[in-house]
Amino acid sequence: MGIAVDTLERTVGGIFLQAGLLPAQAAAMARTIVAAERDACKSHGVYRIAGCLRTVKAGKADPAAVPALSDDGTAILRVDAKGGFSCAAFELGAPALAERAKALGVAALVINDCTHFSALWPEVEALTDMGVAALAMCPSYASVAPTGGTAALLGTNPIAFGWPRPGGHPYVFDFATSVAARGEVELHARAGKAIPDGWAIGPDGGPTTDPEQALDGAMLPFGGHKGSAISTMIELLAGAMIGDLTSPEARAELGGMSMLPRHGELVLAFSPDRFAAGRPGDPFARAEALFDAILGQGARLPSQRRHAARTKALADGIALNDEEQSELARLGRLGLAAV
Amino acid sequence: MGIAVDTLERTVGGIFLQAGLLPAQAAAMARTIVAAERDACKSHGVYRIAGCLRTVKAGKADPAAVPALSDDGTAILRVDAKGGFSCAAFELGAPALAERAKALGVAALVINDCTHFSALWPEVEALTDMGVAALAMCPSYASVAPTGGTAALLGTNPIAFGWPRPGGHPYVFDFATSVAARGEVELHARAGKAIPDGWAIGPDGGPTTDPEQALDGAMLPFGGHKGSAISTMIELLAGAMIGDLTSPEARAELGGMSMLPRHGELVLAFSPDRFAAGRPGDPFARAEALFDAILGQGARLPSQRRHAARTKALADGIALNDEEQSELARLGRLGLAAV
Repeated sequence: MGIAVDTLERTVGGIFLQAGLLPAQAAAMARTIVAAERDACKSHGVYRIAGCLRTVKAGKADPAAVPALSDDGTAILRVDAKGGFSCAAFELGAPALAERAKALGVAALVINDCTHFSALWPEVEALTDMGVAALAMCPSYASVAPTGGTAALLGTNPIAFGWPRPGGHPYVFDFATSVAARGEVELHARAGKAIPDGWAIGPDGGPTTDPEQALDGAMLPFGGHKGSAISTMIELLAGAMIGDLTSPEARAELGGMSMLPRHGELVLAFSPDRFAAGRPGDPFARAEALFDAILGQGARLPSQRRHAARTKALADGIALNDEEQSELARLGRLGLAAV
Repeated sequence: MGIAVDTLERTVGGIFLQAGLLPAQAAAMARTIVAAERDACKSHGVYRIAGCLRTVKAGKADPAAVPALSDDGTAILRVDAKGGFSCAAFELGAPALAERAKALGVAALVINDCTHFSALWPEVEALTDMGVAALAMCPSYASVAPTGGTAALLGTNPIAFGWPRPGGHPYVFDFATSVAARGEVELHARAGKAIPDGWAIGPDGGPTTDPEQALDGAMLPFGGHKGSAISTMIELLAGAMIGDLTSPEARAELGGMSMLPRHGELVLAFSPDRFAAGRPGDPFARAEALFDAILGQGARLPSQRRHAARTKALADGIALNDEEQSELARLGRLGLAAV
């Protein structure tokens, strides 16, 4: 048996409390990190705790921030994270966003001034649980060159989408708009292995398969000019438009990429019931026919592997190796002194 | 000197009047087609007229449709195109959409029951002219296999985005979510040339570089599983959610792909002024800094070539070759009898 989800949430929450986070912040962080660990998303799981603590210790994320929701009755809801982590800010805004989408058909949640480290799928999944479809996006750090360019400018800018599936896991995708994650380039560097063609350019702006050159240069967007355009849209909508930092601004503001990035986020929610009102057919049943057709070809739905890992973790507990367990114990004992 | 834009609009509009379209439909069609010809988008220009007429002649698009806007005061505006072409439906809904976005921050325009042939950039550009950012998407015909799949299911599902640039052409992208357009595969077939790896699969579900096999099989999404996920999202949001046909349903409904597809469309509009209210910095000025940085690397913005062609066409007129000019004369003379 592994560790039960709620047990691990208490352990992780305890680490953040010990590091000075307010209870609401610590609990939201723990839920987000444990959800990733539960779904076998190691890159956003327990591994992230140390980075969060480093960012607090450096004074770049406020552990005592109390996010504030403002609502002027329009289709825009705004949460000022006040320099804290995004998790509690999202949890504050999400129910209001779902309600507003159900009232107006479509609504937007803006999160401003947050430190962001989580994947976006926990957010869009939370919204599908409330009966709405959701599209979330945010800038990150300038580390990706626009297609045809020569240097890091765009972030890895993730985009995530969720669609509710009554009685089952939602349809969810969540991916970086870079062709590969920076962590994957780092793994190649550590292993002394070349990276594939098309992943990156070096500091001279030319193509490279040397991971060290890639880390000093820039990654490339997925899908060529199309991915580059989507990434630019994310800078515009979830950076410039919401009055928060774009990826180049975030990198300049923090003077590098060793801390977690500070920026904002845009989350759109759609009420399928509202959009389909008066039209033939049930939107959820029609979506199921599409999913059946995809699966019937032997293709996968995004997040299938993650949802399978969840089912296993909920039955058997979360498996942590010895190193991860001693890291948790060390971070809990030493708090900010551990990083 | 080529043909002046307004002269060509009168000529094209006259063809549609002659074919029985109501004046408002004919004029909207002419504006859309001539805009494409003006911007050197030959694939959506004069070339499309015959296909539109064929679809009318087959009784698949209603030339006498009068689109109707319904507005329940929420963030969803809906235009029932009543089986006519999308152009007049969009023109009816766009000003209301921009106004609603300015009032609520974000709003959606649903177009239902339309025959769709146009690019999406004329639509998002029209919205940027009204001061809002816009994101448009629609299904098409099942002709693309989901990544990992074996047969056509998704459409080429275009997605387009526009951001207003005060004093200049907007930032606009508009692309198919297939790796290549079906027309490009057809051109390779006619020329007897192999298509590149990764464009398509054959009717057996396996990869092919034979364009004939590709046309009998399916195209592939751009950007692997990421593009496939975005295309699926378009089926959900702009098909199932809005109570209109998905790409497999459209292909089944029309029994093939020789007519223009019938489906709906979703257009989102965002008011940057609303989203940025109370936040530091001007969203439009900050966007310009991003565009300057992209251009400063020697990279291009999407639509730059199209906007350059427009500048030339507005100064020198639109250049049509002899074949195009005689085709216009023939279609105008014979109307529906010409197709």
